[in-house]
Amino acid sequence: MPVLSADDIREKVSAIYAAAGATEREAGVVATLLVESNLLGHDSHGIIRVPQYVKGLEEGRIQAGAETVIEKETAATAVVNGNWGFGHVTATDAMGIAIQKAKEASIGIVTVHNCHHVGRLGAYPPLAAEEGLVGLITNNGHGADKALAPWGGVGRILPANCFAAAFPSNKDWPVAVDMTIAVAAGGKMRVAVARGEKVPEGWVVDAEGKPSDDPAEYTTHGGALVPFGGSVAHKGSALAIAIDILSGALSPAGCTQADPPATGNALYIQVINVEAFQLLDDFRSEVGQFVDYVKATPTAEGFDEVLIPGERSHRTKKKRLANGIPVEDATWDQVEALAERLL
Amino acid sequence: MPVLSADDIREKVSAIYAAAGATEREAGVVATLLVESNLLGHDSHGIIRVPQYVKGLEEGRIQAGAETVIEKETAATAVVNGNWGFGHVTATDAMGIAIQKAKEASIGIVTVHNCHHVGRLGAYPPLAAEEGLVGLITNNGHGADKALAPWGGVGRILPANCFAAAFPSNKDWPVAVDMTIAVAAGGKMRVAVARGEKVPEGWVVDAEGKPSDDPAEYTTHGGALVPFGGSVAHKGSALAIAIDILSGALSPAGCTQADPPATGNALYIQVINVEAFQLLDDFRSEVGQFVDYVKATPTAEGFDEVLIPGERSHRTKKKRLANGIPVEDATWDQVEALAERLL
Repeated sequence: MPVLSADDIREKVSAIYAAAGATEREAGVVATLLVESNLLGHDSHGIIRVPQYVKGLEEGRIQAGAETVIEKETAATAVVNGNWGFGHVTATDAMGIAIQKAKEASIGIVTVHNCHHVGRLGAYPPLAAEEGLVGLITNNGHGADKALAPWGGVGRILPANCFAAAFPSNKDWPVAVDMTIAVAAGGKMRVAVARGEKVPEGWVVDAEGKPSDDPAEYTTHGGALVPFGGSVAHKGSALAIAIDILSGALSPAGCTQADPPATGNALYIQVINVEAFQLLDDFRSEVGQFVDYVKATPTAEGFDEVLIPGERSHRTKKKRLANGIPVEDATWDQVEALAERLL
Repeated sequence: MPVLSADDIREKVSAIYAAAGATEREAGVVATLLVESNLLGHDSHGIIRVPQYVKGLEEGRIQAGAETVIEKETAATAVVNGNWGFGHVTATDAMGIAIQKAKEASIGIVTVHNCHHVGRLGAYPPLAAEEGLVGLITNNGHGADKALAPWGGVGRILPANCFAAAFPSNKDWPVAVDMTIAVAAGGKMRVAVARGEKVPEGWVVDAEGKPSDDPAEYTTHGGALVPFGGSVAHKGSALAIAIDILSGALSPAGCTQADPPATGNALYIQVINVEAFQLLDDFRSEVGQFVDYVKATPTAEGFDEVLIPGERSHRTKKKRLANGIPVEDATWDQVEALAERLL
């Protein structure tokens, strides 16, 4: 398995996208976000996805050079049209608009439609936290991407909607939450199928709604993912519904529906200017003190320490920046093959 | 068990608070919100609490006539000081400020400190939804109220923080989410102890962090509540941490801490003016259509229908408005005893 520097990977991936037709900026943004996922240890959203977006470009589904257009706005809000460009670029642009509005009007809320998949939702709130702002984001599947059974129901009805947030602190990392409302994301089922493995009970139900440990029930046989919550999965289901409304009904994309006209991500992005409420330094100290307080909790059996959301990723990034990113042969072979064909 | 009309109960409860020293408005707001909880079927937050707030008044912890003061504001934001008046009144005032700001500036975000317990968090977002706005609210325990073990840890470290939201629809009820991050709230443990009942595995851990079915482990022996999520309770724990920061660090109350100076509720309240994004009628239709779509899901074994968050409460309210509210003898005896003493 090659171990490569983030800079080297980023340069190669960026060159591939540029050669496939992306603008220089698009190639740079997408390559940077994919490599950032690897740096943070979220390899499922890293450069393993390079071929997917090259294919999207070559098949004309992703519009190179698409403009991110503000369709409607007030001082604190905007509705943004991504014009089916790279989702990563649309989301970065939309977060940038929300950041600008929060700086000027205390709060910025931006909803987004006509947007391809944006990758790891947790990539965007830290863009706000880096500037001392609180960032939040939710998504639905632009009406489609149905994967999850609602509480009390059978079948793929809702997407595995996600929620992410980042809060600046006085540590060298933000408190960063990033979760899907499914117990486990669909990608984990595909990995398990590829490896011939079973999945833990509670991750998937079959097409009749019965619990199964076979990930193929989800990937092939019409089964569904399960909202998180265990015995109180109605809470996860309620969160999925609330997120769907925020992301879908406040943008022109719409909520999840029976016959969706498109697939992608509709987004709800929110940035809060901390200084409208507290001095930023006081806020950072308060968050840092809270982190220390929670981390001082005596550990439960089987745990070496109490981890704060965002802490493990931060450690992985430090390590991978210093020592390089291990990339599975199959993933790197795909990248090399694209480089050979396109560069 | 007496079955009483909402109007009769409200009148009597309001008179009791006024006689105990509350202003006419305070007495009316608290009585209305307590009876509303009963109407919606949330009896644990209804008039069973009447003596608690009378005691708070008589012992001088709740300041009758306290003013809700805006300490800092922008067009879209405010920091509010409740001056330790009735929490129900402070939260109602703060939601009113957020609603007004959302009408004028598209978004209203209000954080609140020096605020007593506000009761059922789900009471406030519908005040926004009634006016065609989206309402959201989170709380912590004003630094205190520790009840929950964080993921990987042992002991009462975080409060059972709550999240509630309401979305206007074209039905005669809003989609309304209201949940604690604990699998089950502390009040349920107290009820189970009073009844000599066990609780389901997964609700509580003992002081060493071991699962228990004895609710007294929580109420008496230093055990803790568990964040919801089942096998992925790190998600519930992460939500509790995010909510604590929003509610505590954006208000002067602070996040949960080792030696909190006070107890109550710090609040984060957000109102979104739908018209900044979509025509309100279109939004209402979209939400209504989404509700119909999710409700059309084939039901799982053991379910008669797929319920939407807020739907069951709405039905209970209709029934109880028509037929009266059943009140347990013990609860009504308490109210009558207070009426006899004070009126």
